[in-house]
Amino acid sequence: MPGVGPRSAERIALWMVQSRRDQPEQISEAIANTRQAVHPCKLCGFFAVEELCEICRDTSRPRDVLCIVEQATDILPLERTSAFRGRYHALGGRISPLDHVAPEDLRIRELLDRVEIEKFAEIIFALAADVEGEATTNYLVDLLKDKPLTLTRIAHGLPAGGGLESADELTLYQALTGRTKL
Amino acid sequence: MPGVGPRSAERIALWMVQSRRDQPEQISEAIANTRQAVHPCKLCGFFAVEELCEICRDTSRPRDVLCIVEQATDILPLERTSAFRGRYHALGGRISPLDHVAPEDLRIRELLDRVEIEKFAEIIFALAADVEGEATTNYLVDLLKDKPLTLTRIAHGLPAGGGLESADELTLYQALTGRTKL
Repeated sequence: MPGVGPRSAERIALWMVQSRRDQPEQISEAIANTRQAVHPCKLCGFFAVEELCEICRDTSRPRDVLCIVEQATDILPLERTSAFRGRYHALGGRISPLDHVAPEDLRIRELLDRVEIEKFAEIIFALAADVEGEATTNYLVDLLKDKPLTLTRIAHGLPAGGGLESADELTLYQALTGRTKL
Repeated sequence: MPGVGPRSAERIALWMVQSRRDQPEQISEAIANTRQAVHPCKLCGFFAVEELCEICRDTSRPRDVLCIVEQATDILPLERTSAFRGRYHALGGRISPLDHVAPEDLRIRELLDRVEIEKFAEIIFALAADVEGEATTNYLVDLLKDKPLTLTRIAHGLPAGGGLESADELTLYQALTGRTKL
């Protein structure tokens, strides 16, 4: 389990064997239930207990904006910002030839189907600001550029609270070239 | 001197006293010469050996774009990006009531004089992405908004190489709200 080293593992193992109460059984059951109950949402790939996740089932959210992310886990920090209220689509990774991840391995077919059916007005690319993230964004932009919708990308630039002296060269370059009107 | 702790200081002090060659004298002279020769550029506040710095004297650089920074040292990383070729103006700090820095303590009068004389087409604000940086930007925007020029700000968002999981909430918020068209 992530974050559990050899010493913690030994402590947990001893507790499992020696515990007089039924906490270990309860945890075992909870893990089994979670594994059984939670699966990827059919539509967006986020965590769901029914066929669709809570975000896709929420009728109060706008249906005209889609935000594309790499992983389902990327949806959590975006939701915490409250800056976005539309729909999501998790690709399940990013194109990375070095890790043998090709476009066919991602949920791109599902994305194109959604674009045809759901008629979005805007698609926001919120992939990582690194080489593979940029390559995946460019690949998808190529597939989507002729559709009647606006394609946008989250801003790349100076992170919040950062001064110029702590920013690397590429970040400053992107901050300068991506400057916005005031 | 920055980066010199008590142990290093002691080592340097002993070397100064014990050295048989005239290196300590040479260093002393170099420090004195640098102090005497280098001073802030009359125009932009960057380091200069003549009245104007090398950037202000460079006639090959465009004269129609001005980039406002907090400190003269902020010009160095911006120059390394090669994304900007215009002129600079270092304020000498940022407005910060907690540190007793008021607008009068900054080179704002000089900035307004330059705007009148040099007739820039665009002014880029490249201040830190924190509270004081934003406040100083807003203060200057208020002073300059009625002038016939475009005011822009370097992009705030995801730093280069960063994934969504490593970005803080405010950075993601700014990245989403400041998204750019593709």
